[in-house]
Amino acid sequence: MQSNLPSRGIVYLVGAGPGDAGLFTLRGKEVLGRAEVVIYDGLVNLALLRLAPPTAEIIFGGKHDRTRCVTQEELNALLVAKGREGKRVVRLKGGDPFVFGRGGEEAEVLAAAGIPFEVVPGVSSMYSVPGYAGIPLTHREHVSSVIIVTGHEPPSSPANKLDWAALARIPGTLVVLMGLRNVPAIAATLVVHGRAPETPIAIIGHGTTGRQETVVGTLATIAEEVSRAGIKPPAVTIIGDVVSLREQLNWFEQRPLFGRRVAVTQRLDLARPLVAALRERGADVLEVPATRWVPHPDRARLDKALGELASYDWILFSNPLGLEFFFERFFQVHNDLRQLDRKSVV
Amino acid sequence: MQSNLPSRGIVYLVGAGPGDAGLFTLRGKEVLGRAEVVIYDGLVNLALLRLAPPTAEIIFGGKHDRTRCVTQEELNALLVAKGREGKRVVRLKGGDPFVFGRGGEEAEVLAAAGIPFEVVPGVSSMYSVPGYAGIPLTHREHVSSVIIVTGHEPPSSPANKLDWAALARIPGTLVVLMGLRNVPAIAATLVVHGRAPETPIAIIGHGTTGRQETVVGTLATIAEEVSRAGIKPPAVTIIGDVVSLREQLNWFEQRPLFGRRVAVTQRLDLARPLVAALRERGADVLEVPATRWVPHPDRARLDKALGELASYDWILFSNPLGLEFFFERFFQVHNDLRQLDRKSVV
Repeated sequence: MQSNLPSRGIVYLVGAGPGDAGLFTLRGKEVLGRAEVVIYDGLVNLALLRLAPPTAEIIFGGKHDRTRCVTQEELNALLVAKGREGKRVVRLKGGDPFVFGRGGEEAEVLAAAGIPFEVVPGVSSMYSVPGYAGIPLTHREHVSSVIIVTGHEPPSSPANKLDWAALARIPGTLVVLMGLRNVPAIAATLVVHGRAPETPIAIIGHGTTGRQETVVGTLATIAEEVSRAGIKPPAVTIIGDVVSLREQLNWFEQRPLFGRRVAVTQRLDLARPLVAALRERGADVLEVPATRWVPHPDRARLDKALGELASYDWILFSNPLGLEFFFERFFQVHNDLRQLDRKSVV
Repeated sequence: MQSNLPSRGIVYLVGAGPGDAGLFTLRGKEVLGRAEVVIYDGLVNLALLRLAPPTAEIIFGGKHDRTRCVTQEELNALLVAKGREGKRVVRLKGGDPFVFGRGGEEAEVLAAAGIPFEVVPGVSSMYSVPGYAGIPLTHREHVSSVIIVTGHEPPSSPANKLDWAALARIPGTLVVLMGLRNVPAIAATLVVHGRAPETPIAIIGHGTTGRQETVVGTLATIAEEVSRAGIKPPAVTIIGDVVSLREQLNWFEQRPLFGRRVAVTQRLDLARPLVAALRERGADVLEVPATRWVPHPDRARLDKALGELASYDWILFSNPLGLEFFFERFFQVHNDLRQLDRKSVV
């Protein structure tokens, strides 16, 4: 149905989810699978890039790279330029593109330039990261509202326009996205404005991945807990009574291989079941195909056997690659599967 | 790798997303694909149930069915019972299970019963539904906080424990999930507590599906707009300056086939490219395979042709089903592909 796809350029603003590649959407996979250009952010799980065609142009659009710094203006211009070239562009952003992600700004630029775009929402870290730490965002007995803010600016900064007195007055769940270094000041500010010092708080680093780390405390103790734990960004902070549910609901960090980093060096397609089983047990799996299987350069023995096929009753293969190489050579020599006749192949 | 999966029962609390089946997650598809029991809610897109094996037991666990009413207690007991039987159970819930979905309560019951569970977050309607209406939840120039509440209780009800005065004081985006009938009262209450009457508000019914309907107004006018539009639940309401971005960013409702309901009667596997192309253009596609292709009961002519294969140079097939039926019979008669020899097959 390639012919039925838009022939004009189109930009897909796609949410990559919180980290776990399994939380990517079916629609995201579909549009990434036929992308011609992919522009991805720093917090995107790199395993997702494998879903793009090998021919796709892959561009890093993150803003926290140490060697260079792409500005939002440059990114906007790039999206417009690639769209104008008639390309199918996937703009892959961490979490959801329309939740504190400047996706709204990118959509505005595309709309102004007359370039068609589609929004493919992603799983936001605001609830999925607490969920992987065993903390529901809401609970019938604990909460009836949720507030989401970012922690980029310290509460004392003039750039921080949040009304902390009003925020502290609302008793539900408060989620702080990013801004790990400002969390102690935010906790203190909430207490100053009347929120109970014993209110539970959890900070989750690298949530939904095998490197997930959770620190739990209260608004009064979290500054100390955080400096002791040495937790690292990216982090999601959740404040409120729901944090106490973690004691019973901490399903992910209790898995048998949680916290273990396993490198799987097998060829990607063959390693898939192993990788799935390891992940299901909580391992942090790195797929690093380090081996390359090639046919033995001396084909004399294989060719001899192929020439004497009629004298064999059985052909046994010890692994799928042997099978692959055998038939590759087989068809160079024989051109016809019938030469195998009724031999047993195992 | 079936042998590597947990042999004890396990319950997956899976978010089905906001409505569009494309917004389901890869992990959700994976666990649904090997479910033995599926318990799904009323707001779940029924197309997702096709991802479960045909042998899976499918149970409606919605609470808004008119003919019967499953209580949350019955659902909890059912989850525990199926888990104890050693079953792989998928509990499929609209949006995300840990966002106002009582998934936390279900997880608690499972934890207390010692039944392993996994949370598979979904795309929440709180931002994806506004996103499909061209409204980002946040925008750098408009907002620095987002508040999420449910609209189940009218603001005047004693059961409503929200502090509307504090909520009205926070200038960011306010999202009201569900509770369409209470939205006019919520808008009026916010104005009473000092939020500007001209604050933009949008109500989106059946968001992310082909039946999506959006009504835009201000806190002052929305009661009238809503009664005029006759919008129906489920609905998501978004309040704040970001609503004004919809004028430029309304990508979904402007698609050429948006609002058209198309029934595709072809066999599901063959219809897939057509369904994808229609959805890409905004159509509300109903997959209702109404035709069943069966081999002609009188096989005499086919058998005669199969018997005289050597006399044919070409075999032409007019559609994939013809090919399927031909080979089904072919192997009943011939048992060996070599009978086709070097005939051309088109």
